[in-house]
Amino acid sequence: MRIVIIGGVAAGMSAATRLRRLQEDAEIIVVERGEHVSFANCGLPYHLGGVIENRSALLLQTPESLAARFRIDVRVRTEALAIHPAERTVELRHPDGAVESLEYDELVLTPGAAPVRPPIPGIEHALTLRDVTDLDQIIDAAEDAAEAVVIGAGFIGVEVAENLVARGISVHLVEAAGHVIAPLDPEMAEPVHSRLRANGVDLRLRSTVVEIGDDGVTLDTGEKLPGALVLAAIGVRPESRLAAGAGLEITGSGAIAVDDRWATSDPHIHAAGDAVAKIDAITGDDVLVPLANTANRDGRLVADVISGRPGVVRPTLGSAIVGVFGLQVAVTGWSETRLRAAGRPVRVIHTHPVHHAGYYPGAVGMRLKLLVDPGTDRILGAQAVADQGADKRIDVIATAMAGGLKASQLADLELCYAPQFGSAKDPVNFLGWADQNLADGLVDTIQWHELASAMAGGARVIDVRTPAEHEKGAIPGSTLIPLDELRERLGDLPDGDLIVHCAAGLRSYVAARILTQHGRRARSLDGGFATWADGTAGR
Amino acid sequence: MRIVIIGGVAAGMSAATRLRRLQEDAEIIVVERGEHVSFANCGLPYHLGGVIENRSALLLQTPESLAARFRIDVRVRTEALAIHPAERTVELRHPDGAVESLEYDELVLTPGAAPVRPPIPGIEHALTLRDVTDLDQIIDAAEDAAEAVVIGAGFIGVEVAENLVARGISVHLVEAAGHVIAPLDPEMAEPVHSRLRANGVDLRLRSTVVEIGDDGVTLDTGEKLPGALVLAAIGVRPESRLAAGAGLEITGSGAIAVDDRWATSDPHIHAAGDAVAKIDAITGDDVLVPLANTANRDGRLVADVISGRPGVVRPTLGSAIVGVFGLQVAVTGWSETRLRAAGRPVRVIHTHPVHHAGYYPGAVGMRLKLLVDPGTDRILGAQAVADQGADKRIDVIATAMAGGLKASQLADLELCYAPQFGSAKDPVNFLGWADQNLADGLVDTIQWHELASAMAGGARVIDVRTPAEHEKGAIPGSTLIPLDELRERLGDLPDGDLIVHCAAGLRSYVAARILTQHGRRARSLDGGFATWADGTAGR
Repeated sequence: MRIVIIGGVAAGMSAATRLRRLQEDAEIIVVERGEHVSFANCGLPYHLGGVIENRSALLLQTPESLAARFRIDVRVRTEALAIHPAERTVELRHPDGAVESLEYDELVLTPGAAPVRPPIPGIEHALTLRDVTDLDQIIDAAEDAAEAVVIGAGFIGVEVAENLVARGISVHLVEAAGHVIAPLDPEMAEPVHSRLRANGVDLRLRSTVVEIGDDGVTLDTGEKLPGALVLAAIGVRPESRLAAGAGLEITGSGAIAVDDRWATSDPHIHAAGDAVAKIDAITGDDVLVPLANTANRDGRLVADVISGRPGVVRPTLGSAIVGVFGLQVAVTGWSETRLRAAGRPVRVIHTHPVHHAGYYPGAVGMRLKLLVDPGTDRILGAQAVADQGADKRIDVIATAMAGGLKASQLADLELCYAPQFGSAKDPVNFLGWADQNLADGLVDTIQWHELASAMAGGARVIDVRTPAEHEKGAIPGSTLIPLDELRERLGDLPDGDLIVHCAAGLRSYVAARILTQHGRRARSLDGGFATWADGTAGR
Repeated sequence: MRIVIIGGVAAGMSAATRLRRLQEDAEIIVVERGEHVSFANCGLPYHLGGVIENRSALLLQTPESLAARFRIDVRVRTEALAIHPAERTVELRHPDGAVESLEYDELVLTPGAAPVRPPIPGIEHALTLRDVTDLDQIIDAAEDAAEAVVIGAGFIGVEVAENLVARGISVHLVEAAGHVIAPLDPEMAEPVHSRLRANGVDLRLRSTVVEIGDDGVTLDTGEKLPGALVLAAIGVRPESRLAAGAGLEITGSGAIAVDDRWATSDPHIHAAGDAVAKIDAITGDDVLVPLANTANRDGRLVADVISGRPGVVRPTLGSAIVGVFGLQVAVTGWSETRLRAAGRPVRVIHTHPVHHAGYYPGAVGMRLKLLVDPGTDRILGAQAVADQGADKRIDVIATAMAGGLKASQLADLELCYAPQFGSAKDPVNFLGWADQNLADGLVDTIQWHELASAMAGGARVIDVRTPAEHEKGAIPGSTLIPLDELRERLGDLPDGDLIVHCAAGLRSYVAARILTQHGRRARSLDGGFATWADGTAGR
């Protein structure tokens, strides 16, 4: 049995090593177009910035180590030119240019995804970052660069920006959308904007590059941003050309279509990783999720299937995290923006807890957001932005989603507590309680982006914080009545609908409970002044 | 409606504030025997060590703040002497000694648990730590102490030991069992022993105190350990005397018995927190779990039930964590020791991953352990010991348990990955894969404590590490055949059953796969040399 794997990084290498463990006798050949297999693609930006000092640390395995331990025949700098499914052959071009037709019993396609290169005039001046060879080029260009332009403020764009700053380079970061990191909602991205700017990044939102030269870029406004180094980090597209050329089915999004056994439309060709369409955990639809963890997981599952194990559907939530100058930005599932665009009803909860007990030194503030289906109480997504503790909370929520826990059940999770690690009432538990209160009708909330129209419709905003807090910054048109005076000052309240707010939404919840039990219609501003300020910043 | 709550810390105060939010009109009276309500009991040791500098930081709420915000009538230094369920009255002794009979409509008992004071001669010389008043006494005693003896190396004992060391005091830590922190298995406790000793703690395992004097203790060996300060941290027992006196049902373990609505045997008396019996999540049996997070959660649920909401069964896993001189020690569910003692079959998995990508600077080694029901693949417990990342992994596993995920499903969890936060194949995913391999019969493992008898029975141990690793320390009687030479040296293997081992269990798994596919019976030593060394240390 000869198994040929095309693409030797995350999914491909996971498939290859698992195959060897399952099939000691199989012939396993890995074909990789690039110079290296099994390199640490998620680590590339950090070698640029010097965080990972040695380039060799990025090379997790070599053809030699894979041959010695796993008897895998690894062929680098070898390109697959064409697949002939009927003959079960793949045409390979060797480093010396010679072309070979290699027979296979089973073929695994794990070619990954390639950086998008948009048709901007001068795009040939832009570098992209996908592999170690790209990284070497970027480092070369960075040697003499005083300024750089990064186009695209997604995960890779912000990581590269941070690492260029670490090299002492002034960075212009250009993003067409209104905020960085697309899976975040705009108000959750605001602290990321602040962090980037505080570290000297010239962040240009709602900006489009219309031309790239060898000394910088031109924006749609006509402004020129100088940069001896221009990097395009606009996104990636599945490498499905080889599969398409072989007549395999391709999805509407350009990915290789696979069934629940990771088989393509040809039963002897399987595929996994960034090149294939995955199944969205929320809707069951095809979705592109180019993430290393799912690629590794799915590569291993392909090896299982080829070795005769049953296929299993593995929908994907797309949990992801990025560090931005010390800020952790973590997401799982869908955002509010995406849910509303899809016309799905959504219950939204913002909280601003501290990452461990507030009385223990070093507690840092977090921004948490939970998205819930109001009809079923199903968790649809979550976002966390904080200097610490964001990874843990999103991992817990992603696990709860995988286990089918309802949002209200987050309240009952037993999470490890000692004051340096969490809180007796953990931020995740609080999300569950907030959800229960909404589901039970104990409180009604209003979102930051709904406030202006509610006020225009006559609702009055009551700030239940302290006078000192109110003076430092308040919602225009709000009336100050501190929570601890509220019961005595019910007569001072204006008529009509009330919206109560505090700093983060906790005191306003208590205020709303008091007011509704006294017969008033009062909604609590979700996430309080903090979320409102994040959402309305720069507008 | 008058609701009287006896005990004003975690469960009691959560019940009181939730009651006010649900019932604006109720009269809510909290009776607290001590000087303070709502203090940070889990923070007490850290004020002793000076980590939490200001004593006031421990006082989260005061009677005044609770009156202002929640109109709760808080009565400190007031003791409940007796309950008369038939009359619905509780007899209170005021700070001035006056006794009052207070009527209630609903009574909530949240008296907590008191430190055990064993009948050792001289026990009156030992201090205990439960509240701020106790802490003040300990700090007084510590002022002049050069040495201290802490009896009991559970969570509180090790926290106090660490904080006494932080004050410059030499600490003798005496533990009757063979290892510290009872919910850990012995091999998992070994790094905790090393950490304690490395920080100067004189750890005395398998040692019993037979007498306490005013200048130290005497052990069963006759040895005297000096200490101007002696602290007993042997454990806690539920404060159920008041409930028992009122004729309420008490469990065999001395806790207040409650039903699924937190009602005691009297329908107008509810109870929650450390004084009540909880439901074990693994067996459904009554269990004592004196933890702040469950106390807070359950206090809130009592308020719900009293306010007419449905009761719900909330079994408890007992997730817990403790910091030991920078080492995180986290557990959830049952230990191997407890499972085996109960005669339950158990599948055991030890791993030694790094807490984030190994190629990113700062990765630290972890010790992880997973306990699984081999018949159902249900997760029964987990333990993690590491300088970083232990809290996150146990929180994720506890959440998976709450969601009913099988051990093998840990492989599919989508956890946030960037190299500074985790690994593309997270340690939790690896536990899932290890479980799958065992469940599928791909590999058979042997535990460290089973090795000696297997060797006595004729099994031969093959070390598949490198010669350099073997030289630094090896299992007596083992034969070195490095993994990458194994296929060539199959002829060098001894006859009979083989046990292969490496450093942590990963290479030996690969070796076992090779050997079994070549027709040999070979088991892999679970957790490798590292777990074996931990388990056999000091034996």
